[in-house]
Amino acid sequence: MSDNHADLLVVQEVAPRDGLQIEPTWVPTEDKIRLIDGLSQLGFSRIEAGSFVSPKAIPALRDGDEVFRGIQRQPGVVYVALIPNLKGAERALAAGADELNLVLSASQSHNLANMRMRREQSLAGFGDIVQAVQGRAVSLNASVATAFGCPFEGAVEEDLVLRLLDAYLALGVQGVTLADTTGMANPRQVARLVRRSLERLPASMLTLHFHNTRGLGLCNVLAAYEAGARRFDAALGGLGGCPFAPGASGNICSEDLVNLCIETGIPTSIDLDGLLKMSRSLPALLGHEVPGQLVKAGRNCDLHPLPAGLPA
Amino acid sequence: MSDNHADLLVVQEVAPRDGLQIEPTWVPTEDKIRLIDGLSQLGFSRIEAGSFVSPKAIPALRDGDEVFRGIQRQPGVVYVALIPNLKGAERALAAGADELNLVLSASQSHNLANMRMRREQSLAGFGDIVQAVQGRAVSLNASVATAFGCPFEGAVEEDLVLRLLDAYLALGVQGVTLADTTGMANPRQVARLVRRSLERLPASMLTLHFHNTRGLGLCNVLAAYEAGARRFDAALGGLGGCPFAPGASGNICSEDLVNLCIETGIPTSIDLDGLLKMSRSLPALLGHEVPGQLVKAGRNCDLHPLPAGLPA
Repeated sequence: MSDNHADLLVVQEVAPRDGLQIEPTWVPTEDKIRLIDGLSQLGFSRIEAGSFVSPKAIPALRDGDEVFRGIQRQPGVVYVALIPNLKGAERALAAGADELNLVLSASQSHNLANMRMRREQSLAGFGDIVQAVQGRAVSLNASVATAFGCPFEGAVEEDLVLRLLDAYLALGVQGVTLADTTGMANPRQVARLVRRSLERLPASMLTLHFHNTRGLGLCNVLAAYEAGARRFDAALGGLGGCPFAPGASGNICSEDLVNLCIETGIPTSIDLDGLLKMSRSLPALLGHEVPGQLVKAGRNCDLHPLPAGLPA
Repeated sequence: MSDNHADLLVVQEVAPRDGLQIEPTWVPTEDKIRLIDGLSQLGFSRIEAGSFVSPKAIPALRDGDEVFRGIQRQPGVVYVALIPNLKGAERALAAGADELNLVLSASQSHNLANMRMRREQSLAGFGDIVQAVQGRAVSLNASVATAFGCPFEGAVEEDLVLRLLDAYLALGVQGVTLADTTGMANPRQVARLVRRSLERLPASMLTLHFHNTRGLGLCNVLAAYEAGARRFDAALGGLGGCPFAPGASGNICSEDLVNLCIETGIPTSIDLDGLLKMSRSLPALLGHEVPGQLVKAGRNCDLHPLPAGLPA
């Protein structure tokens, strides 16, 4: 495949937000800033750097304001903040986020559990946010969580997901993310939903967010890419995880994804060796191993010496 | 996809051989037999039940004879033994193996390291085995290890792999396995090599053996399946691993693969809930967690109760 802009697989790094939010160990603000600043040197055009949700709901990310103020901004990097409501949007704007990522869940019960309100209330609140940011130098992305399945309800209807996508587009957002929040997606479902989504918006506006909870994260990326999607969330080390599956993998792993791109010839802008170096520092930061595979196995090009004493 | 025989994805379970061979803890013969007998109830048509290599080389599998003699044979299940040479073939025949799986490596240095002889010597020895089993009620499968990459040499030429495949077919074997011994394959490479292989032999004679060392095992299965391959090795729990990558994943995980089939609608004959039950028993048997994801996350259909106290 040619190294052509239309083929480029864009990775949005989400470890500082979706990766850290479930960590039981407090990651000090300066370490979060160092993580983001390190990532911003590796070719990412987009980094989800924090969230502005209730500190009671997600104590691990309660320092979003200081994090956004402390990072060294790299030209060409869009620093994204996840926000649940207008109050979060105001905090994120004050802290200097380049993009706000709104989120609601496709399934009503997951939205109630996650956002403490009904989907309709979430959507109405997003209308207020759209009003509030008009004229401000900030873009809006909007995410559909549980777009491929809900841990409480099971299957989620594709038509429902597409209606929410349409509602987001009607609000005037600049991008939409379809999120497989608890790793229930499969490649054929993904290909179908991506094809139908791309009838509604261009690939440059669509992001896919996969978790590797059941080992299918990278399969889903490939299926989505082959169906025309070009933007994917991924987390350094495969950080993240799911509150319902202790010990299961989290987000798809950035370095494993970039390795897939390099080995298959899919163009990517990311520095894989730099990523691996950062991934190796995670266990000391977090106090546990991370799910990423490449960091344990090394790249294909990392050859091993022959054992001594072989026959000629 | 219809539940039609031509679409069936056949899983050969290799945990008792490729899974256990690297385990540092001795698994008693009766536990190996119990593992094989349990697997033989779950719909597998093929189980690689042991190997007949030097007990010095692979002490963990030194009891292959007792294992093959102790299992309760299920009608319709082919019990396969891995063998490196004529001596191993004679032991496997005496123990009652239904099929012998010969192996050499595509890369010369890996064959020297693994088999202590050159590829040409391995091939010549296979000729002797073919002679020795003539007229016996046993089939022969032949594997090309490092078919997608070598940990000592790096890239392996496709044409070389295909020449070895041709040499195997000329010997008159009933099946050929292309093995990604240390998890270096990528989906586009796999699709290409499968297509070229299927110009030489039917899908019913071709097995793909993938490791998940760099997280691409199931991507490679899907790519191979879409290119026409139908037979795959996999190990309960994702057992196995690679001596060059401590902590990395091993074989692709049977239950994760079967879940992929079920979720995407690819027909399979395997009882997934039965597999999960067996997978849950592995940590007690082996003294460590296993890499499989589904056993930690549960199936998509295992729904979770809604948290209490949600807004209406």
